[in-house]
Amino acid sequence: MLNIVSKKLNIIKKEEGNIYPILKSTSKYFDKFGEVYISSINANVTRAWKRHKHTSQYFIVPIGEVKFVFLVDQDERNKFKEIIIGEKNYAFINVPKNVWYGFSNLSDQPSYIINVINRPYNQDESESIDIKNFPHAGYRW
Amino acid sequence: MLNIVSKKLNIIKKEEGNIYPILKSTSKYFDKFGEVYISSINANVTRAWKRHKHTSQYFIVPIGEVKFVFLVDQDERNKFKEIIIGEKNYAFINVPKNVWYGFSNLSDQPSYIINVINRPYNQDESESIDIKNFPHAGYRW
Repeated sequence: MLNIVSKKLNIIKKEEGNIYPILKSTSKYFDKFGEVYISSINANVTRAWKRHKHTSQYFIVPIGEVKFVFLVDQDERNKFKEIIIGEKNYAFINVPKNVWYGFSNLSDQPSYIINVINRPYNQDESESIDIKNFPHAGYRW
Repeated sequence: MLNIVSKKLNIIKKEEGNIYPILKSTSKYFDKFGEVYISSINANVTRAWKRHKHTSQYFIVPIGEVKFVFLVDQDERNKFKEIIIGEKNYAFINVPKNVWYGFSNLSDQPSYIINVINRPYNQDESESIDIKNFPHAGYRW
């Protein structure tokens, strides 16, 4: 079974504003720096399924709330893992390469996902399959 | 005079949500990856002055609007450079080490600053001086 790690990060709250830690080079979950970018996801949007053949990913959601779903085991009965992160549960998710995943905005406003990846984004190494054509059935969005 | 570089970044807008580029390892403005974190700044807050002795910084503001001010020349008449970035002017600012700077939220909501720095954050290498005690006079917040 694939190991998708998610751990809480501590927001430092101050009167003038907050500090939201994301990732340090000294973290055991840091691999290599390839790129950091933000993707926003609008209300009522689900994006699934996707896979990156060679890129590992590290997600945090500082604003809003997002449900991520990972296909962690492919056999006769596929196994999925759901992880919800966002401003109320500030945590990272570390995703190895080659994992099918999708995500859905649980907020009625746009949510913001910060993505740190171990190589610069390259569309050629990613795959997408529509939910209705996804061959690994068993997850109901 | 110190060189503070700021350049526009292109937001990719889609129906489902947007992509906000921040920084790639292949950028000429990328040095080394030390840490990435977010600082929010509340309405009506100004934070000045600060300096990092050894750390270079790379800022973007995906939400809100922030005025950054840099002391770019210290002589009899100090020179300051103002740069406003935010969701309406999506751009990065690249700040070399050892530059005095401050920033002020121009939005009536919290603004969010994403900071990419070339070494893990270390309070011991940063200095702060209150506006009223800052020895390099000439900037009116």
